[in-house]
Amino acid sequence: MIAEIVSTGTEILLGKTLNTSAFYLTGQLTGLGIEVRYHTTVGDHKERLFNAIREAFNRSQMVVLTGGLGPTADDLTKEIIAEVFKVQMSLDVDSLSSLKDFYQNKEIPPGTLRQVFFPEGSIVLPNDFGTAPGVMLEKEGKFCIILPGPPTEMKQMFDKYVAPRLQAILENNGQKMFARVLKIFGLSESELEQELLDFMQKETPSMALLDKHTYIDLRLTVRTTDEKQANEILTRAELAIRERLGNKVFGVDEESHSLVVGRLLRQHKLTLATAESCTGGLLGGMITAEAGSSDYYLGGVISYADKVKQDLIGVNNSSLISRGAVSEIVAREMAEGVRKRLGSDLGLATTGIAGPGGGTPAKPVGLVYIGLAHPKGVLVEKKQFSGNRESVRNMTVESALNMLRVYLLELD
Amino acid sequence: MIAEIVSTGTEILLGKTLNTSAFYLTGQLTGLGIEVRYHTTVGDHKERLFNAIREAFNRSQMVVLTGGLGPTADDLTKEIIAEVFKVQMSLDVDSLSSLKDFYQNKEIPPGTLRQVFFPEGSIVLPNDFGTAPGVMLEKEGKFCIILPGPPTEMKQMFDKYVAPRLQAILENNGQKMFARVLKIFGLSESELEQELLDFMQKETPSMALLDKHTYIDLRLTVRTTDEKQANEILTRAELAIRERLGNKVFGVDEESHSLVVGRLLRQHKLTLATAESCTGGLLGGMITAEAGSSDYYLGGVISYADKVKQDLIGVNNSSLISRGAVSEIVAREMAEGVRKRLGSDLGLATTGIAGPGGGTPAKPVGLVYIGLAHPKGVLVEKKQFSGNRESVRNMTVESALNMLRVYLLELD
Repeated sequence: MIAEIVSTGTEILLGKTLNTSAFYLTGQLTGLGIEVRYHTTVGDHKERLFNAIREAFNRSQMVVLTGGLGPTADDLTKEIIAEVFKVQMSLDVDSLSSLKDFYQNKEIPPGTLRQVFFPEGSIVLPNDFGTAPGVMLEKEGKFCIILPGPPTEMKQMFDKYVAPRLQAILENNGQKMFARVLKIFGLSESELEQELLDFMQKETPSMALLDKHTYIDLRLTVRTTDEKQANEILTRAELAIRERLGNKVFGVDEESHSLVVGRLLRQHKLTLATAESCTGGLLGGMITAEAGSSDYYLGGVISYADKVKQDLIGVNNSSLISRGAVSEIVAREMAEGVRKRLGSDLGLATTGIAGPGGGTPAKPVGLVYIGLAHPKGVLVEKKQFSGNRESVRNMTVESALNMLRVYLLELD
Repeated sequence: MIAEIVSTGTEILLGKTLNTSAFYLTGQLTGLGIEVRYHTTVGDHKERLFNAIREAFNRSQMVVLTGGLGPTADDLTKEIIAEVFKVQMSLDVDSLSSLKDFYQNKEIPPGTLRQVFFPEGSIVLPNDFGTAPGVMLEKEGKFCIILPGPPTEMKQMFDKYVAPRLQAILENNGQKMFARVLKIFGLSESELEQELLDFMQKETPSMALLDKHTYIDLRLTVRTTDEKQANEILTRAELAIRERLGNKVFGVDEESHSLVVGRLLRQHKLTLATAESCTGGLLGGMITAEAGSSDYYLGGVISYADKVKQDLIGVNNSSLISRGAVSEIVAREMAEGVRKRLGSDLGLATTGIAGPGGGTPAKPVGLVYIGLAHPKGVLVEKKQFSGNRESVRNMTVESALNMLRVYLLELD
């Protein structure tokens, strides 16, 4: 099937917003075996949007639109689709009752009320993260999908409500695609490509790399009619790749580093505490992103100031004076200290220079120490990251989770 | 002047590459006062590219193209432009001699040799980072700019060789655009639209809302030839909106909530500590996203387990037993406790039910208490957020920052 993506939104055309939605959707549609031939971005302007949409349907069987579902007067996508498809707008009773629930006893603003009207024949797609539902509509072999502009709402709606329906449509067309994503930490995209050169050149399963900044997604894809055979091929490839890369493969499909670490902690019945300096709470934030993390995560100390390092988790003043806060010994004392203070089995600590200021020739921006205290001792890793403040902090969080994961794997 | 951007490149349509070039160019063109009305991405396919380019010139006075300047057979942009503009391809002597210098005594590959031919009438733009020169071409009032696909080559060429030429062209035309963004917390998109209805209907400055999930961007835009006049119009509108919305306006342009709070803390010479339960470190992570935050942020305690709430920051066991961890009194004791324990001027605490599990009829998912301890007492706000775990946690962080900001503003 041939598709194209039409993004509406004046902010993209003002150069304020990167069009990450077109990127995301293209990756997902391609993954399903749909060929994306065009991206178009057009402002919230009736005539231009109408022309862009009509043009898109002239060229392609499927058009995926993002944006223009909101409550304001310049949100016009559904109305234009109704015009292009020559159908009326009609009220969706379920959406109205959801909206009433959302506003409880308060009055629904008139603009928001527009969000419960849809082109006739639409499948209404629930929006679990916002008030504007999406649309899937088919007429005379042309498919239209309308998703919300905000990327989190768009992604959630696509993954949960659109992808399964598209898969079903494609299966009726006799196409079937099976995919598995291996998540890899500790290699760059080009190192990984080198490492897997022989695999990458094979036709089945086809492989693609996607750099997720702190890790890489390696996507394996098989096209066949036989699900059992597809799974066998994918499993065989996964095993061969795991054999080559060892525990650099940290997860499969949607598994995050924090999810995998949580599972291992639960499995070993171990509890964790964190002591954070340069990451300032991001590590705890990542660990607690997982529902149920209170089973193994007790909490932590954000020991940003040196005095907090001393008073709350017992880092020695002499270590801070002789080696500085960003040092092997301070990472060690932070990890040991928080483990002891919170009474956890494991203590994980970060200290580093996130930048942009604070670097010296001996301790440049990006220098980070990660400490892991466990019942039999303490491990410390020294890292030198590149990039800006955000990037150094994110890499520190992922590296700390990775260090903990590798420790837990080796317990087996 | 009205422009559009046509990106060529199959990798974007495979979902492998984010179209950062269109984003960059849009920002730059908008900054110059050129209105970008469309982005189109099309693969390296002759007929589709030809149609996309012809369509673009039908709509717009200026078309900026990226990609398709390389040495391979599917690099066709210049040839297609020659066809659309009805001119011949001709050899550029300077480019040929640069290429000869680049290859020194080695033979120039035939594909690369194609890179020294250009549509007749072109201004050839040097490529300081690669071998493929770019093109600027004007005919009968239509402007065409062709830039290389690799973003570093494209940016360098645009900044150094295109922008000054465009500036000169525009000054002859006398057009320019000026914008200001007000960042607003505590109103939904439709509430804000209701509140500002009379402003939104005015033509100058034009206004647009963009929902950023935890806050709203309100963008004001003025088109004029006179920068001083533009700034006066924007400032007058900003003041009128601030008068209406009060301190719901938390920042301007690129200012984040954490940046603004940091500035206020520094201004009042106050230090801050955090105690986090449901946000698990995200609040500290957000505060420390700002470089230099160690000036005012001492650190915090992630008191995820009840025992950590008691042991590290002195929450009373009786409060936890009688009211539960998610309660007004525990938020109060966390804020007071962390303030006292870390010796800061202010203590900011979060406790809530982020979900998806753990909710009860009396304490549903999304119930959050935020405590702010200060030298004269403690404030507590009770919130009921909707959405999933991520959304509840993010709203809690923003609401805590907002509560602190409003407190600091009222100190004046």
